[in-house]
Amino acid sequence: MSTGASGGVQAASHTLYITAGSGNSYKPVQVLAQRGAGTPAVHCHLQPIDVLGGETRRPGFLAINPRGQVPFLLTDRGERLGESNAIAWYLAEGSALIPAAPLHRAQAIQWMIFEQTALEPNISPARFFSTLVPALREANAARFPGWLDAGHAGLALLDAHLAEREFLCDSGYGIADIAVFGYTHLAREGGFDLDRHPAVLRWIERVRSQPGHRPVADLLQPLA
Amino acid sequence: MSTGASGGVQAASHTLYITAGSGNSYKPVQVLAQRGAGTPAVHCHLQPIDVLGGETRRPGFLAINPRGQVPFLLTDRGERLGESNAIAWYLAEGSALIPAAPLHRAQAIQWMIFEQTALEPNISPARFFSTLVPALREANAARFPGWLDAGHAGLALLDAHLAEREFLCDSGYGIADIAVFGYTHLAREGGFDLDRHPAVLRWIERVRSQPGHRPVADLLQPLA
Repeated sequence: MSTGASGGVQAASHTLYITAGSGNSYKPVQVLAQRGAGTPAVHCHLQPIDVLGGETRRPGFLAINPRGQVPFLLTDRGERLGESNAIAWYLAEGSALIPAAPLHRAQAIQWMIFEQTALEPNISPARFFSTLVPALREANAARFPGWLDAGHAGLALLDAHLAEREFLCDSGYGIADIAVFGYTHLAREGGFDLDRHPAVLRWIERVRSQPGHRPVADLLQPLA
Repeated sequence: MSTGASGGVQAASHTLYITAGSGNSYKPVQVLAQRGAGTPAVHCHLQPIDVLGGETRRPGFLAINPRGQVPFLLTDRGERLGESNAIAWYLAEGSALIPAAPLHRAQAIQWMIFEQTALEPNISPARFFSTLVPALREANAARFPGWLDAGHAGLALLDAHLAEREFLCDSGYGIADIAVFGYTHLAREGGFDLDRHPAVLRWIERVRSQPGHRPVADLLQPLA
């Protein structure tokens, strides 16, 4: 791997490209923070990318990551991996964040796909134009009703599932909770009324109380 | 589990609810057909569901599967699992269809998520209104340009990836190929010009030549 772009990275370290405030970038970093004591260490350099400043469109970054998406992982062996939930899964390997039983692993994959199809595509753009780039909110006003309706429908399914459960998979807290938490806990910033989903609100507090939990505001802070 | 709804199922069998012609239902069945010799058998009863006939909206089915989605798995222990790619993953456990190396497993998850976000949401509805319910095509005509543009963009990314590879993951043919093949090989039926994606066409033929491959037309046929 090239260490030049990431400045003094050890040769045996992954490079994880992330952007501040992103619910997708949050997931793999949360995994790194919660792999847990007794689990083999994963050496990973966090490389901030200024998406709004255009850094994902610069040739140097596109040479590594042609789709220009963040988060993105360059492994210590130069392998490349995209998709936030796939990166999170890879970094969680060897830890209890990935369920041990096949059925629970499949449940985790089920919820990771649900997150990327029913939640993130609605919550992320509504939040982006409400909070991160409010100057463009008015130009995108016509798209908000669709995002809010579809997002609330996804949150209602999540709420029904969590009404009788502590965490998403029957095996307890793990990678599915991290993936779904990424944008769900930021939904108010997109204009979603989370009070309509009380089981989701209780689950958000349970996730926040897990050992090693980091708020999204600390995303770019060094890992312990 | 209740055996009443699925008629004479052995107690130690999963029940997989599938619908004819569906690229999503195809995936778990293809996994069952390709787990391979020497791999522990998975006993799974295929239960056809007539989606167009309204069977997914009947109380008996909704009691098992509140979202009414197909495919859906009821395990031999009464556990429930949705999302085609998650069901496929579960049924592939213990076989070589799931890559052995952590990086390759994460690549498989990456492509399964890509399939559900960039391909299926565009190819599936375009095909549905073109081929399965053509009487409603005109009423949905305004939605086709968006599906075709976004679907071709996804297919172009797939094509670029496959231009230098035989299969999606570096470990060779497996669950990611089955997941992505599901709708990709049906894209012409939605009006997509697959000739624009020659590496995808070559990969489709490679997938078709794999041992145990079943065409989607045989979806409801009993497994060997």
